[in-house]
Amino acid sequence: MDSQQFRAAAHQMIDYVIDYLDNIRNRRVLPIVQPGYLRGLIPEEAPEQGETWQSIFQDIERVIMPGVTHWHSPSFHAYYPTGNSWPGILADILSDAIGCVGFSWVASPACTELEVVMMDWLGKLIGLPPVFLAGSGGKGGGVIQGTASEAMLVGLLAARSKTLKRLNAENPEDDEKMLASRLVAYSSDQSHSAAERAGLLAGVNVRVIPTDDEFHLRAVALKSAIDEDVANGKIPFFVIATLGTTPSCSFDNIEELGPVCNEKQLWLHVDAAYAGSAFICEEYRHYMKGIERADSFNFNPHKWLLVNFDCSAMWFKDSDDIVSAFNVDPLFLKHDHQNSAPDFRHWQIPLGRRFRSLKLWFVMRSYGAEGLRGYIRKQVKLAEEFHQMLSLNDRFEFPVPPAMGLVCFRLKGENSLSESLLKRINDNGQVYMIPAKLHDTYIIRFAVCSRYTELSDIQASCEEICRHANDVVPQ
Amino acid sequence: MDSQQFRAAAHQMIDYVIDYLDNIRNRRVLPIVQPGYLRGLIPEEAPEQGETWQSIFQDIERVIMPGVTHWHSPSFHAYYPTGNSWPGILADILSDAIGCVGFSWVASPACTELEVVMMDWLGKLIGLPPVFLAGSGGKGGGVIQGTASEAMLVGLLAARSKTLKRLNAENPEDDEKMLASRLVAYSSDQSHSAAERAGLLAGVNVRVIPTDDEFHLRAVALKSAIDEDVANGKIPFFVIATLGTTPSCSFDNIEELGPVCNEKQLWLHVDAAYAGSAFICEEYRHYMKGIERADSFNFNPHKWLLVNFDCSAMWFKDSDDIVSAFNVDPLFLKHDHQNSAPDFRHWQIPLGRRFRSLKLWFVMRSYGAEGLRGYIRKQVKLAEEFHQMLSLNDRFEFPVPPAMGLVCFRLKGENSLSESLLKRINDNGQVYMIPAKLHDTYIIRFAVCSRYTELSDIQASCEEICRHANDVVPQ
Repeated sequence: MDSQQFRAAAHQMIDYVIDYLDNIRNRRVLPIVQPGYLRGLIPEEAPEQGETWQSIFQDIERVIMPGVTHWHSPSFHAYYPTGNSWPGILADILSDAIGCVGFSWVASPACTELEVVMMDWLGKLIGLPPVFLAGSGGKGGGVIQGTASEAMLVGLLAARSKTLKRLNAENPEDDEKMLASRLVAYSSDQSHSAAERAGLLAGVNVRVIPTDDEFHLRAVALKSAIDEDVANGKIPFFVIATLGTTPSCSFDNIEELGPVCNEKQLWLHVDAAYAGSAFICEEYRHYMKGIERADSFNFNPHKWLLVNFDCSAMWFKDSDDIVSAFNVDPLFLKHDHQNSAPDFRHWQIPLGRRFRSLKLWFVMRSYGAEGLRGYIRKQVKLAEEFHQMLSLNDRFEFPVPPAMGLVCFRLKGENSLSESLLKRINDNGQVYMIPAKLHDTYIIRFAVCSRYTELSDIQASCEEICRHANDVVPQ
Repeated sequence: MDSQQFRAAAHQMIDYVIDYLDNIRNRRVLPIVQPGYLRGLIPEEAPEQGETWQSIFQDIERVIMPGVTHWHSPSFHAYYPTGNSWPGILADILSDAIGCVGFSWVASPACTELEVVMMDWLGKLIGLPPVFLAGSGGKGGGVIQGTASEAMLVGLLAARSKTLKRLNAENPEDDEKMLASRLVAYSSDQSHSAAERAGLLAGVNVRVIPTDDEFHLRAVALKSAIDEDVANGKIPFFVIATLGTTPSCSFDNIEELGPVCNEKQLWLHVDAAYAGSAFICEEYRHYMKGIERADSFNFNPHKWLLVNFDCSAMWFKDSDDIVSAFNVDPLFLKHDHQNSAPDFRHWQIPLGRRFRSLKLWFVMRSYGAEGLRGYIRKQVKLAEEFHQMLSLNDRFEFPVPPAMGLVCFRLKGENSLSESLLKRINDNGQVYMIPAKLHDTYIIRFAVCSRYTELSDIQASCEEICRHANDVVPQ
């Protein structure tokens, strides 16, 4: 394919994706394929000779689309949203063409520098205290990670390194590996499973602390776990607090947890993967109160801020903590400006990295702060409207109030009723939702996800849910 | 931006990237900016109101391009190549528009299924034994990771988990954390620094074994390190062998190392990040001899196989090893088909993942096996031609023979001469190369990287090098 053929193919692809997204409402949100469906549709090996673009292009509808779960359908209410916007796609085209690997400043200065400034823009947009911003002149700064699960692991590993260094300075004769085996991290029973997995990956214990009746991790529970562990010879070192949990979008009280962590020298990582985007709106900032006590903070613009995956924003209060943690500098990666600009390879798990800050730049400029706030508020309003609609059907109950773009509901009665309802709905494939457990209570989560969602879509989803509820619990 | 505005903007962007890449030869490969150059060029925060596309678009040349290191310039000879092709860009546009997060089969079946089959296509293309392929009906299979450094860490963590399970089964009373502290992994002094960093991240010891005079990790050295460590109460568990090292593209002898690893129950991870792409050509397959003894194998189609970053291909001989290692399955991620299709979230560090197999599909079909082999052979030939040209200048010597697309050279005499030469060349910014050390010998690496490189570019680069050499060592 030469550049003229590419021009024609790209125009065709642009038209195709516009058509796909503008008419996504007409597709069944969940595919009907069975595992293994795809293998039989294409050859068993790569072709010996190159194929024409048209033969590749026509296979998108034939091979791919029958097996796509349409995350941007207005009937997609599962998980949490994943971002998708026109300026985001434009930025990725440019990023692909530049195709630099920004592991160090010199490997492409613009890639590093735009990221530093965009992380400052984004931090200011959500009202993050200046101590986290590179432009404040301190040691704070932000970096784009791939996912919130990586950010959690990066935070945990940085905390492990920092803690072991401190202990080693206090007692140089202690064996580091032995100390490491006594480390313990904390998450709550509402934290994302990535917290537990980060512990498995890092080989450290993660203790899951029960939340209170409203699904918040409380200081008293954290403190008592820490005291118990210390008494048993363990070394508490890391706490994950969540702003906007996956099951119910509940918020841990940072203002209450922060002092405990600071006093006991535990690293506090705040995971706001979904809800963080809403902090661009003043009315949600109160959830962040006390954030200046955190050591690291993370949210995903690729979830709710219209930035295409992947773009997970993470800030450190003291970037030395991460830069010094796993710094391996072979000759082939050294350059002359190592102390005057960040080398982001030290801030993350992988060595390589794409030019992702272009997406943040294009999206923030194209929508403007006002446009982004309008988007968040519209999604929240749609969730509230769904809640009101569903409340009219007295088969349902709501174990927690709607929070941001999420409504958690269930059929009154045994968990099995709601399980049966969800299975029917998803099997029918017109609306896609997923379940969660709030302590022992099974709930169905309804998240407003697509930027195409309008009130009529919410009404249609509500009708589909009620229709199946009628079969499960006839009145 | 609505979809009609996007159509116009995307056409403009497509024209821009065609112009950028087709004329990349006219840009200085290394930028002349200083650290901090970008901050002053743009506002201090995001705009309140959205901006027009034109105001964003015009800033690409004003703000970004002055700070870009042009990885696809034919004068870029640093590191190793990173892939970039028209079909790769087309696939990413589609991937962005579909915008699914493929952490499980149900989250988008096509995303998982195309990846399974593409990893089989790719494995067949390089002649990987069937035991690594999903379609063979065994436990083998491939997955797309982000980078080779992640693949190395994933291999190491899977090996750690497998070893600890085995030891735990043998001696249930032993403390797992204590056993973990005795683990030791092996790499060579020519392995990528990511090997050492994987050990730091995982909190396990990595012992760096000296290579022989031709920079190969040898079985006798590995065996003696293992025996010594066992005698000292350590637990050897993981070996990284490299096919195509970063400093000089040397090849460890898998056929010799494999039996040692198998006999002593050490996990053998083979890292062929750069050179793996060349195995699509029959004449390079001999380097893989003995690969059936490896537990995991990795190479980066995003390096030398024209696939845009990120796309790092990793295969496991027994995928149970990774699936069972860090499996945390909350209710919200469970689905009905968990045992009939892979859930790739278990195969990697992050939870989320993009639809990256589209890139492999489009690139393999568009070029065909023949086209890809032709591409590799052309790059190798250009490297050989560069070697011949530079050999005519008797200031230079070549501590190792050219290998694939890499030529390592130096000025005869003290290391400082070559250091000084490289500094002059990079400061001038017309050609970009990086150094490495082969034991104590400083070398300059010349890698053929860009798909735009022609013989005339190689000649121009050679002339630029000789011109500066003349200043450093006048004759």
